[in-house]
This record gives sequence, structure tokens and C-alpha cells, in this order.
Amino acid sequence: MELRKDPITRSWVLTGDMEPALSASHPCPYCAGNETLTPQPIYSMPFGNHPGAVRVFPHPRPLYRIEGRAERRAELIYDKMRTVGAHEIIIESPDHHSRLSTAEERDIACLLNCWAARIDDLKKDIRFKYITVFKNQGTVAGQELTHPHSELTATPFVPRRILYELRASQEYYGRKERCVFCDIERQEEQQGLRVVDISGNFLALCPFASRVPYELWIIPRYHHSSFESDLLHRTDASELAGILRRCLARLEQVTDAYHLVLHTSPNTNVRTEVPGYWSTIADDYHWHIEIVPIAKNEIKSYSIKESYYCPTTPETAAAHLRDLPANREAVPQQRLEFRHE
Amino acid sequence: MELRKDPITRSWVLTGDMEPALSASHPCPYCAGNETLTPQPIYSMPFGNHPGAVRVFPHPRPLYRIEGRAERRAELIYDKMRTVGAHEIIIESPDHHSRLSTAEERDIACLLNCWAARIDDLKKDIRFKYITVFKNQGTVAGQELTHPHSELTATPFVPRRILYELRASQEYYGRKERCVFCDIERQEEQQGLRVVDISGNFLALCPFASRVPYELWIIPRYHHSSFESDLLHRTDASELAGILRRCLARLEQVTDAYHLVLHTSPNTNVRTEVPGYWSTIADDYHWHIEIVPIAKNEIKSYSIKESYYCPTTPETAAAHLRDLPANREAVPQQRLEFRHE
Repeated sequence: MELRKDPITRSWVLTGDMEPALSASHPCPYCAGNETLTPQPIYSMPFGNHPGAVRVFPHPRPLYRIEGRAERRAELIYDKMRTVGAHEIIIESPDHHSRLSTAEERDIACLLNCWAARIDDLKKDIRFKYITVFKNQGTVAGQELTHPHSELTATPFVPRRILYELRASQEYYGRKERCVFCDIERQEEQQGLRVVDISGNFLALCPFASRVPYELWIIPRYHHSSFESDLLHRTDASELAGILRRCLARLEQVTDAYHLVLHTSPNTNVRTEVPGYWSTIADDYHWHIEIVPIAKNEIKSYSIKESYYCPTTPETAAAHLRDLPANREAVPQQRLEFRHE
Repeated sequence: MELRKDPITRSWVLTGDMEPALSASHPCPYCAGNETLTPQPIYSMPFGNHPGAVRVFPHPRPLYRIEGRAERRAELIYDKMRTVGAHEIIIESPDHHSRLSTAEERDIACLLNCWAARIDDLKKDIRFKYITVFKNQGTVAGQELTHPHSELTATPFVPRRILYELRASQEYYGRKERCVFCDIERQEEQQGLRVVDISGNFLALCPFASRVPYELWIIPRYHHSSFESDLLHRTDASELAGILRRCLARLEQVTDAYHLVLHTSPNTNVRTEVPGYWSTIADDYHWHIEIVPIAKNEIKSYSIKESYYCPTTPETAAAHLRDLPANREAVPQQRLEFRHE
């Protein structure tokens, strides 16, 4: 496995031989009582009456590995590096059948604090440029095991979409001396058209330029760039837990599957360099949660993904394609069978 | 239907009420002899022995419409405009069961010239910033009717991925005074690892940072920014037709479905503005064809699309979500059923 930089778009692509997906097994390794079936936890917290039931351990088939350095290097005009980073599983509940949409809000608050604690801890490692938490709910969203869990990745690069957000919010601040997310939050509150829920410090909305139907964001109504620092030092997680639970309860009535992704500030001072700008990430960035639903019968037409994991290297693909007959009577032989991460 | 600009990422999203997909009907409206079932052709060319069998007409349910101006306007801090543009269907063959992978190369050359002629014609309209041709092969790729056809869109904006390409190739030229695509082409030829086919003026390769397995590019081995101008004034289409056919013949042995997208220079002088750069698109951009296969059991995990068509407005979605119960006992009601364009 290695990371390769697209020389055109500058995005990093994870490529290499694919490991098989985790498949359901009995007993469920994530259930309470089966802790011996998973790696030693890195972190654990009580959940309801269960001590240590929210727990974090390394992904058994990680996309990123903690050992070594990124070893950034060139291959003539191309750039690549090792898949240094972290990939962790966060068990959300001891109950196999629980969902965030129906969980007790104090337990969700505990999970949110766990996310914050893990991100904060990994940010101490300067090899990691970006650390985030995401949750794939539903098989079509890429959920491997059904037991409720989220995942954390620490990567030696800032993902494209975050880079674009950082650049755009920095440019906006340069023009207006205001945070673009604060402006969005205020306009949405004022217009009311796209608001789903308001609760004290938090607003839930369907964004103006939604990429897919029922896209949902949860955004603080105050300015703060960093989720983990906010939750660890400033804001009580219970209000966020409540609005998140209500949003998911509503959303699950229109779709089974979604991606939930936390957008928080990158680690250290990694920035897009735009000459002439002077604001800091703390000034111009604003953490938020994005929830992107997946419709059941969604058709993949011309559309390119934002973050890529390509389980077959182009060298392997090219060699295979070269070996195949190119005559007009060629018949189907072998079909692509793979999964995306 | 309207176009909305994402205030963060600056990409334009098409949103509005969805029209139902075209569904198969008998007789096939695209077959030879049924020309009265489709709109009057804008353009037609002979195909083999069939006069006028490659033909172009407006999409019956277009995403973009030719009438009027873009009417760019603000909604407080947001930006939007009308869906002005063009959306055309290009019938590739009179034969319902033909495929580009098995067609006669002289007929494919004729189709490529037809693409060039339509793009060249629409570039005369300065309302259109970008004109491209794409082909969705296979139902999972979004192909509506099975009769072989490609589509053309003219849009009042430059799509994100093209903008990123333009910016990156301009930056590269600024540093090196060379075209990044020319450098890629030369390195790939030299390394040979990712080459699928070379034929006179054209190279087919699996790109170094492939986004999905078996991604394929066809790129001229000489420098030229504009497909349509190249084919109309400089390069005979037959070599390109040959390499395209052979690539598709190989690819169809590993997958049923793919998106084929032509990347050519934008219209007029639309540029990403990076202060201090001075090259022109003719210097630093390089047309090419990208073919992105779709695997059958592809799982959609955390990944965001590059070009978006959102058939439910966020206002409708937010209103619906607001109306749904958010209590912990909420039960599934209505499921998302829609298609993407």
C-alpha cells in the first residue's frame, strides 16, 4: 500500500493490494463480553451502566499504519509516500442493535467526548496532518460489521475537500474579515428555509448547494475551528448529542445509509499557501459535521469521487489490459470485483 | 431547476425538481427508421452505408436549456444562476446492438469528428464556458436507453475537475515552462509500466494515481489543448478511433460499465486567476479522454462526488425533515427514491 499524488489535481490516492473486507462473524467481536476478540483498547469510556463499553482499538485491517515516517519521495515527476497514519475503530455501544438515533443522549455525549479525546491525542504526533472521525451507516455506505461503530483516520496529508474548505474560508476571510461558516450559519437562521433543527448552540441545516438530497450539516452557532479543543475545553457535548440524535432519527426515516464525517481543523500549521493572506485557521475555519445520505437506487453516472482508495495499482491494471485481446471479437472474461474504502 | 454555487468549495450544483429518467420503449426511438420519434437532428453524418445515421438532437429532458441568459445573481451571501446551456444526444450508430469496442474504426472516426464539430459549433456561443462530450456505458453508469449514444453538455461554468486541471497545469507551466500532460506522457512512455497501448500519435495508459481500478486515459503524444480544433484542423481521427476501440475492447473484458469523458480546453478565456502566471491555455493545457470504469459490487463508502446533480432542493429536504418526528421511537416511513444525473 502506498500514497500517490495525482500530478494534476494534487489529491493523494491510496493504492495497493486490497485486503478482504471484514465480514460478519459469530459471536460479534464488538459486543460486550467479547472484548478478547478485538485488539487491546487504546481508550475506553463508560456507556450507560456499562463500564468501558465505548472503546477504541486499532482497525484490524488498517488503511494507515502507525509505524515509521511518510518517506515522501519522487518517482521522476510523480510524488509518493508511505501510508503512515492511524486507523481506529470506535465501538459506540455495547448493544449490537443500538443506533445513534435511538441511543440515550448522555451516551452519545460520551461518544462525542471520546472522538474529541482521540483526535486531541493523535494531534500530538506531528507526522499526522489531519485527523478525523467518520461513520458509514448501512452496507451501501461501506459499513463492514453491523455492530454500531465509527472510525478514525489520521493521515500524513490533508484530504482534498478539507483543503478546498481551508482555502475558500481563508480567501473569504481575506475579503470580508469574517468566517464564511459564521455567515452561512447566520443567513440560514435568518432565512429559515433550510433549517432542520436549532438547539441552543447548534444549528442543523440542509446546505444551500446540497450535493445529494437530504444532505445535512450540524454547525456550531459560535465560531470555533477545532471540534476536539471545543469539546474538551469549552462546550458541553450534551446539546450536540441531542441535535445529532434528532437529526439522525429524522434522516433514518428517509434513508437507511449515510456517511457522517467530522470536519475539524487540520493538525499544526498545515495551510494552503495563498500569498497575501494573513488570517489563521483559528480565525477562518469552523468545525462542523456533514451527513451525506445514500439513496438506495442511486445511479452512478458521470461523477468522480473526492477521496479515493484504489485497490488495484495502475501497473497491475495496465499489465492486465495489455495482456487482453483487443480484437473486435473479444469476449468477456474476468469481471472487476472489488470494494472501495 | 437552477445552478447554485457551493460557498465553500465554489463548485456549481444543479438542483431542482427531477424529471423522470428516459425509459426503454418499443420501438427504440434511436434506431434507424424511427427518426420521427426523436427531435429534428441538429447535425448528422453518414455511418458506414447509412447516410445520416450518426446524428445529434437535443436531449428530450435536458439538464441545461439553450434559451436566455445565465442571470447570475446573489441570494444574500449565496450565488446562483439559471441552467442555461445545451444538452444533446449523439446517436453513435444505426445498429441498436453495436458497441464502440466492436464498431468499424472508420465509423468511430466519423463519430469523433461529429463530437469535434458539435463542440466547435457551441464554442461560438460565449454564454457557454465549457462544452464536453461524455458517454455513460451500462445501467450502473447511468445509461438510460440501451441504443449506443453519447451526450454533450454546454454549461455556463467550468466544472470543478476541469478547473483544478487548468489551475494545476498553469502552475506547473509557471514553474517548469512545460506542459504537465506532456511530461506525464513522456514519463509513462519511458517507464512503460502503466502503458496499455501506443499507436502513432496516441498513448493509452492507466494513470499513476488512478482513482478507481482500471482507470484509463488516452492522450495525444503531441501538445494540443483543444480536442475539437485538433480534430477539425490538424489530426486525422482514424488513429484515435483505433486506439479508443482497442482500449474499450480490453476494458469491456473486465467491466460492463464505465464513464468516458472528453477533457478539452474551456471556451474563450475563462481561467482560474492565479496572480503572476502568464501562460495561455494553449500553452499549458492538453486535451485527453478519461475512462472511469465502475465495478459491479462497488461499495459507496465515505466519498463525495465531483459533479453533482441534486434532484431534491435543500428547502424541500429541510421542510420534510422538520416535519418528521425526532423522537427516539420514530419508525421508517418514506424512503429516498431518486436518480442522479
